[in-house]
Amino acid sequence: DDKDNVLDLSDPYSKDPPRHPILKVNSSKPFNAEPPPEILTESYITPNEIFFKRNHLPVPDINPDEFQLTVERPNGQNEKVPLKLSLNDLKTKFPRHEVIATLQCAGNRRSEMNAVKQVKGLDWGTAAISNARWAGVRLRDVLLQAGYTEEASKGLHVHFEGLDQDLTGTKYGASISFQRAMNEKNEVLLAYEMNGEPLPKDHGFPLRVIVPGVVGARNVKWLGRIQVCTEESPSHWQQNDYKGFNPSTDWDTVDFKSAPAIQELPVQSAITEPKPGQTVTPDSDGKVTVQGYAWSGDGREIVRVDVSFDGGKTWHVAELFGEKQKQGQSWAWKLWKLEATLPTEDKEVTIICKAVDSSYNVQPDTVAPIWNLRGVLNNAWHRVHISVNRD
Amino acid sequence: DDKDNVLDLSDPYSKDPPRHPILKVNSSKPFNAEPPPEILTESYITPNEIFFKRNHLPVPDINPDEFQLTVERPNGQNEKVPLKLSLNDLKTKFPRHEVIATLQCAGNRRSEMNAVKQVKGLDWGTAAISNARWAGVRLRDVLLQAGYTEEASKGLHVHFEGLDQDLTGTKYGASISFQRAMNEKNEVLLAYEMNGEPLPKDHGFPLRVIVPGVVGARNVKWLGRIQVCTEESPSHWQQNDYKGFNPSTDWDTVDFKSAPAIQELPVQSAITEPKPGQTVTPDSDGKVTVQGYAWSGDGREIVRVDVSFDGGKTWHVAELFGEKQKQGQSWAWKLWKLEATLPTEDKEVTIICKAVDSSYNVQPDTVAPIWNLRGVLNNAWHRVHISVNRD
Ligand SMILES: [Mo]
Ligand SMILES: [Mo]
Repeated sequence: DDKDNVLDLSDPYSKDPPRHPILKVNSSKPFNAEPPPEILTESYITPNEIFFKRNHLPVPDINPDEFQLTVERPNGQNEKVPLKLSLNDLKTKFPRHEVIATLQCAGNRRSEMNAVKQVKGLDWGTAAISNARWAGVRLRDVLLQAGYTEEASKGLHVHFEGLDQDLTGTKYGASISFQRAMNEKNEVLLAYEMNGEPLPKDHGFPLRVIVPGVVGARNVKWLGRIQVCTEESPSHWQQNDYKGFNPSTDWDTVDFKSAPAIQELPVQSAITEPKPGQTVTPDSDGKVTVQGYAWSGDGREIVRVDVSFDGGKTWHVAELFGEKQKQGQSWAWKLWKLEATLPTEDKEVTIICKAVDSSYNVQPDTVAPIWNLRGVLNNAWHRVHISVNRD
Repeated sequence: DDKDNVLDLSDPYSKDPPRHPILKVNSSKPFNAEPPPEILTESYITPNEIFFKRNHLPVPDINPDEFQLTVERPNGQNEKVPLKLSLNDLKTKFPRHEVIATLQCAGNRRSEMNAVKQVKGLDWGTAAISNARWAGVRLRDVLLQAGYTEEASKGLHVHFEGLDQDLTGTKYGASISFQRAMNEKNEVLLAYEMNGEPLPKDHGFPLRVIVPGVVGARNVKWLGRIQVCTEESPSHWQQNDYKGFNPSTDWDTVDFKSAPAIQELPVQSAITEPKPGQTVTPDSDGKVTVQGYAWSGDGREIVRVDVSFDGGKTWHVAELFGEKQKQGQSWAWKLWKLEATLPTEDKEVTIICKAVDSSYNVQPDTVAPIWNLRGVLNNAWHRVHISVNRD
């Protein structure tokens, strides 16, 4: 017992779980890692082991038999006795709901922003995004159980508090709008399963929030407490992080109050094969194969992915793969593939991709004009420079 | 009588109303015209006379006392007796609802696409967009009255048929999803008033659909009939027009079935002052004033407008003006203004603007990569080249 305490004090990360060696580690404490991009697009559903991992704090060690979710009551309704739900309560007293949803870190593709000008944040490549089938209960059902009603004022926010904490006891936290939480269409979940297994430790065991179409940062892991308030979460990550600014805003001039907290994310796509710097040999028909992913926030479906080999002068339409989801509820990515003949005999080629979503949102051409001091929200066209083997 | 018939046959546009002479006419029959951009941003609410006018067919001459809206019933529910509503029924039997909403033609800023490569369509400048306060009844209430329920299958579409028709009797038509129509949050209206007046003839007198956040083409004017179907409207304008394609798709290769009908529009902004080619004299502090509008579809709020005088290397944040609307229901544009010192002593300057919406969607850098054969959906950065008077 004494020995354990000493261990914890010297290294709060000592209870972190083992991880798959294939992951590229951007930070080990807290653990942040992404899979090799080309493995990401091998399967529509990302296996749990290679699903990108983005922890802000040490992984808490939670005994599932003792776990209780605390849901604070509405004002005046038995306020002193919050709703307490065990894992078994959640699994047996509420309808089970499943959703296939892609999660993306706001910092996905930050390394391309770093290439423009140094930013503050983990140096994510293109794989801080993954897709899983989540199962749990609807947040809406839990809020109704706690006494909240559909008619509750529109301006409210639902706060999520994690059980992960720093050495001073500050816990991870974030919020979404009450409207988003209550609208059935949004399918906001308290998830206890990921791809048919109990949530892995790195993904929030035993319970996490899944907010389809919304930035990873609001999908709070190791969920311990829910509260409904008139203001957004006061947490650092809601107020002073995960917001976008223009490229001329620096750390001396930034006013975090001037920008909205990131919620639903803009349209995104990236090339996963070939890899940057790879030497590609065209097949006997002279064709090369390009693969990648595309996704958009807020349930918008990917309707087209364009690929160019000539700097954007001409564009091929890629073939899209993935399950059809309901209109306005396209929470999952599309994988895409294109086989095409290169337009020139050049030995060096830059491949570009860009996606279009069902609101006809498009990706911007370049990174510099969307560069921001935190390096979030990079959804510029993705470019991969390759060599072509002409022998 | 005979004379009238002769008139009608020789010129189906003979009943079109008079128009304000300040409008720039892109086509007189059918009438399509936009105001001078600098007048557009003089007021948050666009006066009816200068609100852009986009007609597909002759303006029908409708007697308001005889007008009846036909609403077809759901299958099996008194199908042979459609709901018929007079203008008085609409005004007295349903709650009145008001909404401030911006309408934008899909072809707004098409002239910049024409400058890249010729497209098919009216040569709109930057002013095929305007903002008004609409009053009428909720489409939802009328559909409920006709017998439809919230629980009706999710995949349905609401068809709108105009009373405007071509010489062969083909009427204008379009559709939106049943889900959009029924969700109170979307505030879809059957409007009989525009800025406190009965709808002007050019804007659909006596009744039109207002679908906030959605492309003008679905806001059917001179509404005569509503029908709920399992498929989208079969009309030309829903099926074979108002869709986006990639720049390499031409009239020989286009497959209209491959793209979704445009509904909610992407984030947009433009500079209205100074005008292209204008000579600007900086004020005594060396400052120039830039003004414009910004808007995004689907109720997304404009959260920032950036302006650059150096080709996008540095960006100023403009001041935003306009009424605060509810979250997710920001149907109206924001006007914006910036007073800034020019960064160089150059005698020629290109001013650029770009906007960001509450989903952090951004505008693409250039027009060519979003060029499409119909010249729709141009939301690239807007550029205005001016001369600077340095004397
Ligand atoms: Mo993140
Ligand atoms: Mo239009």
